Amino acid sequence: MPKISTKGEAMPSSPIRKLVPYAEAAKKTGAKVYHLNIGQPDLETPPQFWEKLRTMDMKVLAYCPSDGFESYKAQFAKYYNNIGIAVDTSNFLITNGGSEALSFVMLSCMNDGDEVIIPEPMYANYIGFATAGNINVKPISCSIDNGFALPSIADFEKSITDKTKAILICNPNNPTGYLYSKEELETLRTIALKYDLYLIVDEVYREFLYGGTTFFSALNLEGLNEHVIVIDSISKRFSACGARIGAVVTRNKAVLQTVMKFAQARLSPPSLGQIAGEALFDLGADYYAGIVKEYQLRRDTLVTLLNAIPGVKCPTPGGAFYAVAELPIDDADVFCQWMLEHFRHNNATVMMAPATGFYKHTELGKKQVRIAYVLNTDDLTAAVECLKFGLEEYNKQK
Amino acid sequence: MPKISTKGEAMPSSPIRKLVPYAEAAKKTGAKVYHLNIGQPDLETPPQFWEKLRTMDMKVLAYCPSDGFESYKAQFAKYYNNIGIAVDTSNFLITNGGSEALSFVMLSCMNDGDEVIIPEPMYANYIGFATAGNINVKPISCSIDNGFALPSIADFEKSITDKTKAILICNPNNPTGYLYSKEELETLRTIALKYDLYLIVDEVYREFLYGGTTFFSALNLEGLNEHVIVIDSISKRFSACGARIGAVVTRNKAVLQTVMKFAQARLSPPSLGQIAGEALFDLGADYYAGIVKEYQLRRDTLVTLLNAIPGVKCPTPGGAFYAVAELPIDDADVFCQWMLEHFRHNNATVMMAPATGFYKHTELGKKQVRIAYVLNTDDLTAAVECLKFGLEEYNKQK
Repeated sequence: MPKISTKGEAMPSSPIRKLVPYAEAAKKTGAKVYHLNIGQPDLETPPQFWEKLRTMDMKVLAYCPSDGFESYKAQFAKYYNNIGIAVDTSNFLITNGGSEALSFVMLSCMNDGDEVIIPEPMYANYIGFATAGNINVKPISCSIDNGFALPSIADFEKSITDKTKAILICNPNNPTGYLYSKEELETLRTIALKYDLYLIVDEVYREFLYGGTTFFSALNLEGLNEHVIVIDSISKRFSACGARIGAVVTRNKAVLQTVMKFAQARLSPPSLGQIAGEALFDLGADYYAGIVKEYQLRRDTLVTLLNAIPGVKCPTPGGAFYAVAELPIDDADVFCQWMLEHFRHNNATVMMAPATGFYKHTELGKKQVRIAYVLNTDDLTAAVECLKFGLEEYNKQK
Repeated sequence: MPKISTKGEAMPSSPIRKLVPYAEAAKKTGAKVYHLNIGQPDLETPPQFWEKLRTMDMKVLAYCPSDGFESYKAQFAKYYNNIGIAVDTSNFLITNGGSEALSFVMLSCMNDGDEVIIPEPMYANYIGFATAGNINVKPISCSIDNGFALPSIADFEKSITDKTKAILICNPNNPTGYLYSKEELETLRTIALKYDLYLIVDEVYREFLYGGTTFFSALNLEGLNEHVIVIDSISKRFSACGARIGAVVTRNKAVLQTVMKFAQARLSPPSLGQIAGEALFDLGADYYAGIVKEYQLRRDTLVTLLNAIPGVKCPTPGGAFYAVAELPIDDADVFCQWMLEHFRHNNATVMMAPATGFYKHTELGKKQVRIAYVLNTDDLTAAVECLKFGLEEYNKQK
């Protein structure tokens, strides 16, 4: 029997996935499981999307161009221009979700053994894409004590070697919800210019901002046109995760032409998601205000309730729909599994993502969990209450 | 300005793509371009697909499971069982087209520097996926003189080294249209067992068979459950290329679990293509008989007309919808470009794929072109007439 590859063996398997069988088993007993573990918005995909699908008149579902439909890119450019980012259709390449955009960008910008610096906790799949591309992730640790703010320039400089090719951040951040300020982005600009590094910024959550703050896109950093590569997607913005429509956005033509070679090998991104997705860029300020209002209410509910539990610490996230909380426990992997296996409150339990999966230094995440606030406030309130009683019970048993 | 990666530089760019600007320029002058260069079927996607899209009732377009919807896999399994292949839903992983299936399988089965043997001419993007995965393609040359039949065991054995991990074929073949017989597959079985190699078979064209022949799937080879991995897709079978729904099909659990890790990193395949695609597996024998009848007529028309042109040689393909023809020219890249730039017959010209892109030994493809017979017989007849006059004119000028 032939062997599987060492790369395949090295591909990470997230701690969340190990919990899935326990969640399924819990459901089989009739228990309700509050899913705080996954970034799947519960809000409805806007009706314009479904209407376009219902009324499209096409005979042959053909390949689209490898870089996406021109008409989709035109709508996408209009949206970018409306939010004050000067790009045009030639700056885009449409991908199979933000995931493929990240893979292609890593493969296009980094050689085997090159290093990308990523603040941790980080989106777990960045490590997967890097592993698949023989790229080394160099984590630079953020602290819950200052809400997971960007580390200092000195910390970055300590991590830079002659193999460092890029810095990658997610803004607003998954998993912490941290919103990087314009000043922090200027710091990254300084480092990128000084060391000639790519600055890859995953901005898929850029509309999810709370407390009246504004978003500063890396594409608006001065003098960084050749360095900045933005990852985008309609998944979160329009609650259209299953469409699998993402994008690479950059003014660096060499990068985009190289990404295009990877894109041509896989022929094309999905046609249907683009066709229906085009309509979404016509949504106005009301749409965005509506989702922000809802998520802000959820964020406030979650953070208030969490911090009221003895021993729990949860900084207030500035954006996205995630929070990382520290719990009064020794091992989040064990605790999260215990909740699913052994704890019920009103015949319900809670599924959370142990934060170990978001760290390369996994020990830093031992007491932390990521909570996605993608439930309505009633369910969120019930879920946090369940967590509270679960923590009490768990610590009593020990 | 940071550099792009050496891998990005090494990614192949197909000769077809270099011709695209010339085709576009020709169209701008008002000329008709017969596209014989791309495997995009012109047949309509079955109405059941569109009907399902129009009537689906969904509120949130969510991620589907990383290995695809269970309901899609159930329909897919039913189709497999109907064609006499004993698999169930646990043998499938649904991907972003056959392309992603090939990428994931290569990454899961082969280490950096490992070798995969592929008969050439070969589907050009196999080389791209291998390049992206640091895998070396070892071509084994087939000859137009025996219609591109499988090379001998001795030829395979000459190519096998201690780095060889897999043999990859496309059956029926893109670009040659060659249909591998059961005996040829048995030969591959012998080699796979003797050297403990994966046998990866791209069977996306398995219904496109002409002259009353039958198809023998690699999944039905005895004693090869751990070695055989089949690549599948709904793109060609149902003229649904833009859906981007492919699959890995294998009984090797370790391979499927490893592919799953790559699949989890990119979250999920497109939901819409699966939801609408489910309906297609209910199509019966009439549907397949209809497409085969149409393509067989096209194949016969094409091959007869091509072989009637002085100096042209085109073996009769047994399947798929491609043929590789040898033309009385010195350089197919130059000739194909010349046709688009300089030749018009009834204000029309022809776009073909120079075969150099399908060979690692590019010199073997210098006089050859791949022709996709995805036009109706009237257009196909006009296109071949145009090619005939083009060849006359081209050779007169020299």
